[in-house]
Amino acid sequence: MKNWIGHVAATGAAKEFGIATGELEILDDASICSTPGIAAAGTHAGVKAEGALDLALVDAGVVCNSAGVFTSNRAKAAPVLVSIDHLADGKARGIAANSGCANACTGERGVEDSIAMTAAAADLFACAPSQVLVASTGLIGFYLPIAAVTSGISGATLGTDSQCGHAAARAIMTTDTVPKEAAVKTSVGGKEVTVSGMAKGAAMLAPSMATMLGFITTDASIEADVLQVALRSAVASTFNRISVDACQSTNDTVVALATGTAGNQTIDTPGAPGFLEVGDAISEVCAQLALKMVCDGEGATKVARIAVNGAASASDALAVARAIASSVLVRCSLHGADPYWGRIASEIGASGADEVRPELVSISYGGTAVAAKGVAIPHDEDLVREHMAKPIVEIVCDLGLGDGSSVMFSCDLGPGYIEENRGTS
Amino acid sequence: MKNWIGHVAATGAAKEFGIATGELEILDDASICSTPGIAAAGTHAGVKAEGALDLALVDAGVVCNSAGVFTSNRAKAAPVLVSIDHLADGKARGIAANSGCANACTGERGVEDSIAMTAAAADLFACAPSQVLVASTGLIGFYLPIAAVTSGISGATLGTDSQCGHAAARAIMTTDTVPKEAAVKTSVGGKEVTVSGMAKGAAMLAPSMATMLGFITTDASIEADVLQVALRSAVASTFNRISVDACQSTNDTVVALATGTAGNQTIDTPGAPGFLEVGDAISEVCAQLALKMVCDGEGATKVARIAVNGAASASDALAVARAIASSVLVRCSLHGADPYWGRIASEIGASGADEVRPELVSISYGGTAVAAKGVAIPHDEDLVREHMAKPIVEIVCDLGLGDGSSVMFSCDLGPGYIEENRGTS
Repeated sequence: MKNWIGHVAATGAAKEFGIATGELEILDDASICSTPGIAAAGTHAGVKAEGALDLALVDAGVVCNSAGVFTSNRAKAAPVLVSIDHLADGKARGIAANSGCANACTGERGVEDSIAMTAAAADLFACAPSQVLVASTGLIGFYLPIAAVTSGISGATLGTDSQCGHAAARAIMTTDTVPKEAAVKTSVGGKEVTVSGMAKGAAMLAPSMATMLGFITTDASIEADVLQVALRSAVASTFNRISVDACQSTNDTVVALATGTAGNQTIDTPGAPGFLEVGDAISEVCAQLALKMVCDGEGATKVARIAVNGAASASDALAVARAIASSVLVRCSLHGADPYWGRIASEIGASGADEVRPELVSISYGGTAVAAKGVAIPHDEDLVREHMAKPIVEIVCDLGLGDGSSVMFSCDLGPGYIEENRGTS
Repeated sequence: MKNWIGHVAATGAAKEFGIATGELEILDDASICSTPGIAAAGTHAGVKAEGALDLALVDAGVVCNSAGVFTSNRAKAAPVLVSIDHLADGKARGIAANSGCANACTGERGVEDSIAMTAAAADLFACAPSQVLVASTGLIGFYLPIAAVTSGISGATLGTDSQCGHAAARAIMTTDTVPKEAAVKTSVGGKEVTVSGMAKGAAMLAPSMATMLGFITTDASIEADVLQVALRSAVASTFNRISVDACQSTNDTVVALATGTAGNQTIDTPGAPGFLEVGDAISEVCAQLALKMVCDGEGATKVARIAVNGAASASDALAVARAIASSVLVRCSLHGADPYWGRIASEIGASGADEVRPELVSISYGGTAVAAKGVAIPHDEDLVREHMAKPIVEIVCDLGLGDGSSVMFSCDLGPGYIEENRGTS
């Protein structure tokens, strides 16, 4: 998978999700600090044991137009509640995030702790606490060691070089095995604009030790509500198109901060010049981070790209793709490199899509059709077996009904996932 | 689990699902033949290798008022389509079922093969082909060796003793490790009435090598549409309340045949005398079969009873119970005997129930409360750890909102499930 992810990170990841983007320069040595003016820090505050990085800070240097997308779980963690509140005016200066404890199911005290994190970061950044966003990831149901966290924040040293960004990306990791960072450059009315981001998540994800966090920055000048439109759209077609265990976290958070220092004419509506360019750049950064997440899925040994075409509608295509991607049986087959298309046919039927006609369905693995019009067809079995053994498996389903299409990424379900999740201690 | 399932099979399983039943006599040496007049056979036709039982026949001896509940998967297997067609008049004489091949995703030829099975069984039973129901279970996407199957049917020897019933129950097994049979007696207007059944399924289930089949017989005199009401209700509160992998099969089938030979006054409406008694008996038989299925879940080492109380509505309670039961993370925790309630709290929030207030939720394991009002509370950790290590784990969630309640059974997710499902060859 490493070669593949390296390749798509260099040549563009958005197209893997079926997103057409305009011209973008993909930056090397990407970090959240690739965006001019962004300072970051990654440090050990004492939530995790033995000096492991567990505290990340991002300071945009100025109050930014900001946007956020949060978990729809009713059991929202304290930092999610506080960040939603602090984002109400569309303004934020920076972010304080810890790993090792989700600060979820912690009631009033949890909210007080999240507010204390924003207050400590506000002192460091020299802004108001309400201008700081906060995120936590780790075990649910435990309180933060808040004195250690706030003292860690107060003692942190921010920097704008890529090493500081890399440290911040490492500091939000839980069961992740690699940090996830991405950055691109685009041009808006002759002005250079950068979008960069970092994320954590060993997939879609476990609501316990691995929740999804994503932090995006840009120097584009863009109104907060317009940034929200761009962010929501990018999240819908990237982070929401990967699945590891179909479990929805209490802490999922993606926020974007736009410093406005690029000097472009402010993008004040989704129809304004520059919206497409900045939107494309945000989508590409999110796509790269999302692919890095699914490739790092807990216990995963391979990734599947599931493309559903020929659906009666786009929403039907997505329902079918999501059903296949979430199926533990399909994921077991992937783990065993077994080209058993019957499970895929069954998930298509069970997907809840409005229109499915089994007798029209065709399925292929790596470009080799194994079923057509709902039944098995003769095919080169060696070729299919060879493809299934690869780290990236391509599954294409055509429903034979219309022109709705969608893409989902998933990973295999192997013993490593169970080993990771059988216990918390 | 064996002791527990033996205990509930002897003392009543319906109450485990929260179903209150009247007085019932639970029969020993239960088989589909426990119902007077039911003949059965289990034989080797040649679908499976090496002489393994793969063909089951049930002959009620008379044309019965009959009912059926089938998969809602759009990709319905050929035998499901044929059985639905044959049940349109509410009449059936018997059943022909094979294991080893699901005859699903097999198009027109699959339908012809299912019809050929009903024709061969009709010859044996001496009835019309349209009076025979048909079921198949096993791999999807393969054609039946139909000549072997029909010749197996023609050569079968039916018998009414329990050994014949046991053979039939074995002949529908796929990844099941034990046959599932149950029988009870009740009384309707002074007449003794028996309900018996058999089922297969190594849980909710894998749509590939393990689909759910359930066959129920009774000598009660009951109209077909009334039997359908009783069967649908029993299925909803038993078979539909167990989950192994949340995968919905192409072949799920539960049918009930009522010979009417018990001599009771025909039950012709759901309000008529005897409806409750027969309904209770059907529910108890389905409950026993369902618990035997979840205890035999692929790779399962333990079973969890998940009770959700205090919901704003019964449907909310069921949505929450199903979310917890289907969660691969909760099931990994069960496998590791880990009392990590944060995952349960997260699933409650993500369940999609109309009303959830995280700050009112309490959770207990085996009667020991571990969380109240949404946060951790001090508790005897040794006691909880001891309970989690047991083969039957009791999880109770109170949502603190109303009096809606529901029960689901699930099993743990361990390496055995992956081993079972990583390949088909």
